[in-house]
Amino acid sequence: MIQPQSVGAVVPQRAHFAEPLPLRSGDALPEYELLYETYGELNAARSNAVLVCHALSGSHHVAGHYADDPGNIGWWDNLVGPGKPLDTRKFFVIGVNNLGGCHGTTGPASINPASGKPWGADFPFVTVEDWVGAQARLADRLGIERFAAVVGGSLGGMQALSWTLQYPERIGHAVLVASAPRLTAQNIAFNEVARQAILTDPDFHGGHYYEHGVVPARGLKLARMLGHITYLSDDAMADKFGRTLRHGKAVYSYDVEFEIESYLRYQGDKFAGFFDANTYLLTTKALDYFDPAFEHGGLLRAALARASADFLVVSFSTDWRFSPARSREIVYSLLHNRRNVSYAEIESDAGHDSFLLDDAHYHGLLAAYFDRIKV
Amino acid sequence: MIQPQSVGAVVPQRAHFAEPLPLRSGDALPEYELLYETYGELNAARSNAVLVCHALSGSHHVAGHYADDPGNIGWWDNLVGPGKPLDTRKFFVIGVNNLGGCHGTTGPASINPASGKPWGADFPFVTVEDWVGAQARLADRLGIERFAAVVGGSLGGMQALSWTLQYPERIGHAVLVASAPRLTAQNIAFNEVARQAILTDPDFHGGHYYEHGVVPARGLKLARMLGHITYLSDDAMADKFGRTLRHGKAVYSYDVEFEIESYLRYQGDKFAGFFDANTYLLTTKALDYFDPAFEHGGLLRAALARASADFLVVSFSTDWRFSPARSREIVYSLLHNRRNVSYAEIESDAGHDSFLLDDAHYHGLLAAYFDRIKV
Repeated sequence: MIQPQSVGAVVPQRAHFAEPLPLRSGDALPEYELLYETYGELNAARSNAVLVCHALSGSHHVAGHYADDPGNIGWWDNLVGPGKPLDTRKFFVIGVNNLGGCHGTTGPASINPASGKPWGADFPFVTVEDWVGAQARLADRLGIERFAAVVGGSLGGMQALSWTLQYPERIGHAVLVASAPRLTAQNIAFNEVARQAILTDPDFHGGHYYEHGVVPARGLKLARMLGHITYLSDDAMADKFGRTLRHGKAVYSYDVEFEIESYLRYQGDKFAGFFDANTYLLTTKALDYFDPAFEHGGLLRAALARASADFLVVSFSTDWRFSPARSREIVYSLLHNRRNVSYAEIESDAGHDSFLLDDAHYHGLLAAYFDRIKV
Repeated sequence: MIQPQSVGAVVPQRAHFAEPLPLRSGDALPEYELLYETYGELNAARSNAVLVCHALSGSHHVAGHYADDPGNIGWWDNLVGPGKPLDTRKFFVIGVNNLGGCHGTTGPASINPASGKPWGADFPFVTVEDWVGAQARLADRLGIERFAAVVGGSLGGMQALSWTLQYPERIGHAVLVASAPRLTAQNIAFNEVARQAILTDPDFHGGHYYEHGVVPARGLKLARMLGHITYLSDDAMADKFGRTLRHGKAVYSYDVEFEIESYLRYQGDKFAGFFDANTYLLTTKALDYFDPAFEHGGLLRAALARASADFLVVSFSTDWRFSPARSREIVYSLLHNRRNVSYAEIESDAGHDSFLLDDAHYHGLLAAYFDRIKV
């Protein structure tokens, strides 16, 4: 046992792919770059690689910090590092920014080679399956034939699940945290409101706002505010903010009165200041489209028959965005196919956001699971 | 027993009040008109009056239709009429459009006598308590000293609750359906996103859009779409829409793909076509502010000590906007004060919207309760 440590200063790497990537939509991406980071060392047998897949607002920057920006800590830094649950003394961990992203990987703000201008709304729709396809090409490039594990929370868990179906022979373990086998109508409904907020923002300009020197910040802010509500549990919001009034009493104004309003506006403004609205749109559509059971008459158990990985599925008691019931759907379908699956429902009051937090029970579970993986 | 019937064609009435109405904000409304409808006949003892209070998108038009607009049916027509649970052969039922509304009562689109232009954003903030105060003046005008009952669902239930606290001697029974004693942080958060959608719409013009010949329809549409998600249960959405694709498969577009998107857009557009955005803003603020426990150190039981009415409290199992737990808070606080309170939690899969629907168990309960009220 060592004290958990940071992986320290990290440097993103860039991989260029000249061969077009066929997409599920029928379209293709002519060429593209993936930004990624790695932590730890690939062993001689190339058997210790773990891929971490990011969710809506994540990126390739999973752990550590940048030498010139020490406050920029990876989004899953509490999980990945020496002595941490995903221990980089044992594993070679990879984070990759997905296609369509806004953190350096080819996305809507990149130059469309056909026009010489930013792709904008012309960037093709990308799906979870397309992301996994691009990740597999990156694995090829890095000489990784098979991942010891693919890990992800929320939308990242969908990618881990898709890995087990698209490349069953290339993944030993799939770790799905706070995820779901497909969105519900309510999930899609929230995404649709977020999209409409962006699409109807006059600064959206049909997705070609880059050329107008503006961004649809109002719409993106609304989308993020709404998203935040669904990431937190009702109880967590009550505990953290309750009905606390900034001025101790009602002041009858549309300025901030309740602290929850201040929190949401702050989160919305911050996000709209760095995230790309076209990426937000594309990502919500990727979420909506993901449905491995669709081509199997809606039967998840039929879809999962292809999977041969071992699974760890984790859910959180107060997560109402991807509730424990959604994780259980995956577990039941895997058990039906006689797959090895461990399942844990963690008591947490933090809602969907729990997957990013450092809960002792949750991280202890992940540590134990990763510890038993043979590399 | 008779077959339930419609109250038939009804005619809204208008009451003008020249005496200023002091408001909870410290402001006052110099003069105002209330639009209202009545169904049934006031008995000689003036003891059979029932006030129906409306929620966010309701109005004075509770039952029946208009002779020149037969398709315009009152919003609680399934409840009010001869042979219906709130039987107009026994009761004299009143519906009134609240101040700040957009259905004929004085509101933001009315002319501000001080400026000769529409009030717009200068319309004063109105609270549940102010609405009840105005309703009491209307009761005075109609010669009703005491209501046999005050009834409301959702925000309407808050008004019924407030009646028992502001005018305990003027109300015999309070019927609170799908209501809550105050909003949670999550409730306020949803309201705040809806408000920001309207306030940041470039067509809002600081609330004075009437003068610009536009309405902030984009923002109001978003607000309504979001509202609809919270009115329906997750299960109801899944049953009604599921993941049904309009074209049978993904077509990779931001146009409607899933039927739930179509439903929300339709509801949003329809609402934005007739509802006033300033009224929406004012009403969500009235919801946020309502908190009878606030002046009693947050103790609802202390606040409800004033009430002397008998209560019927009804909640619905899948209502996550105002969950059964919120109704139980009211019930416990009333029991603590040794008040007569009946409580029912109705099994329903329709979420918050259940209070508007004609469920046999729910309506049977209301019928039985109203039947036992002595007039």
